[in-house]
Amino acid sequence: MTNNQALGKHILMEAYDCEYDVLDDLRGIQSAMIEAAERTGATVVDVAFRKFEPYGVSGVVIISESHLAIHTWPEFGYAAIDLFTCGDKADPWKAFEYLSNYFKPKKITTMEIRRGSLVTTDNKNYVSIDSIRESVKGE
Amino acid sequence: MTNNQALGKHILMEAYDCEYDVLDDLRGIQSAMIEAAERTGATVVDVAFRKFEPYGVSGVVIISESHLAIHTWPEFGYAAIDLFTCGDKADPWKAFEYLSNYFKPKKITTMEIRRGSLVTTDNKNYVSIDSIRESVKGE
Repeated sequence: MTNNQALGKHILMEAYDCEYDVLDDLRGIQSAMIEAAERTGATVVDVAFRKFEPYGVSGVVIISESHLAIHTWPEFGYAAIDLFTCGDKADPWKAFEYLSNYFKPKKITTMEIRRGSLVTTDNKNYVSIDSIRESVKGE
Repeated sequence: MTNNQALGKHILMEAYDCEYDVLDDLRGIQSAMIEAAERTGATVVDVAFRKFEPYGVSGVVIISESHLAIHTWPEFGYAAIDLFTCGDKADPWKAFEYLSNYFKPKKITTMEIRRGSLVTTDNKNYVSIDSIRESVKGE
């Protein structure tokens, strides 16, 4: 039984030096984000995208396994992308791969954060998610 | 001129040991997230919330200064909350304060991440956002 389990995986993706036109294209970005969500193996349940004036696009794809979000700053060639999935099935790195090819940033940094680590923090009495799930089932 | 400037501030908030009913209340959560967004000083531009069966709520508030998102696991007493704002005006910690009072988690962990640090990474030639903004204005 491992103690590093978490409910979700959240990739924070910083895409630098992208093309202006790609970052300002509402329809293209919306399609790419939906495709990226589907590639993780997730089920898309809602979509909300906006174009800002004079430039910039924001949007979120809510999936039954959390969400994907993007905010673009075409004037800086930059996009902040969040790829957050939960469950064992969905793999946010598949969305990362797809979006890296779509946006073609010259520089990318990423950080993967485990969300919802259901362990106690007293360094004595670790509780794994599995044991919590078992206790929930047993109720 | 400082080099630690960034386009956005992103707080990842982990709310543990919340009440089941609060975490499973779609309307209450949607209202609280909109109120939290407004307290940051941001402008709400779109809202998408979903209730899952048998339990759980997901939702996003898109603001003109990025987004707030939440996913709840009532069965674990846990909510993953993202408070992402950009610009100098909006303060995501005001949303944090409001939501802490709303969800009353017995344990909270947070991480604040600067998104879109527009500096070069060669350790030689740092470029601040201000200087980039100036060059954009000058075009």
